[in-house]
Amino acid sequence: MLNHQPSLDLVFQALADPARRAMVDRLTRGPASVSELARPLAMSLPGVMQHLQVLEASGLVRSQKLGRVRTCTIQPAALRTAEQWITERRTLWERRLDRLGEYLAGQDDQPSQGENDG
Amino acid sequence: MLNHQPSLDLVFQALADPARRAMVDRLTRGPASVSELARPLAMSLPGVMQHLQVLEASGLVRSQKLGRVRTCTIQPAALRTAEQWITERRTLWERRLDRLGEYLAGQDDQPSQGENDG
Repeated sequence: MLNHQPSLDLVFQALADPARRAMVDRLTRGPASVSELARPLAMSLPGVMQHLQVLEASGLVRSQKLGRVRTCTIQPAALRTAEQWITERRTLWERRLDRLGEYLAGQDDQPSQGENDG
Repeated sequence: MLNHQPSLDLVFQALADPARRAMVDRLTRGPASVSELARPLAMSLPGVMQHLQVLEASGLVRSQKLGRVRTCTIQPAALRTAEQWITERRTLWERRLDRLGEYLAGQDDQPSQGENDG
């Protein structure tokens, strides 16, 4: 029945928080350390680490520790999966609207019998 | 610091659940009653109503009760807001990648001094 796509669940869940969206936004401009991610958020490092865990679990972000610095990079595939899901539904809806428009335009061309039916 | 967009929070939160995504998916094909939404989900009506409340709070869906039937319709603006947020970030990331590619291609044209630096 339900097409359970855990990745979509986790990606949308990850994007549902403004701090995590800010981190994704920053990372689309290039890799960043955890401290660099924390700075504009005025957030503690442990706080940022918690959000980072959610982002990594969703597949949106990957991080690697080299020495004392953990560097984070965006993983665009997860972003694309979520985008695609929405785009497909939006397109479906617009096509339906187009067909409805065509149908109504066709109705206008018909003789107006039954005009007072409704 | 944080650009708090409650609508984005709520839209992504609403999309983070497979039952709610199935309801959105169904509604992009046309309006439906609550019973019609419940049927393919094999879910109780109260369960569907709870998900419907989350979808309505996010602005993704609107419902109207006429007599005994509550009819739900998709609200594409909220879908578009979420899509736009993701598309902008994905585009930013791809542009950055293009610039990086151009930079590296430019590097190839340079005389190969410092090739053993790394």
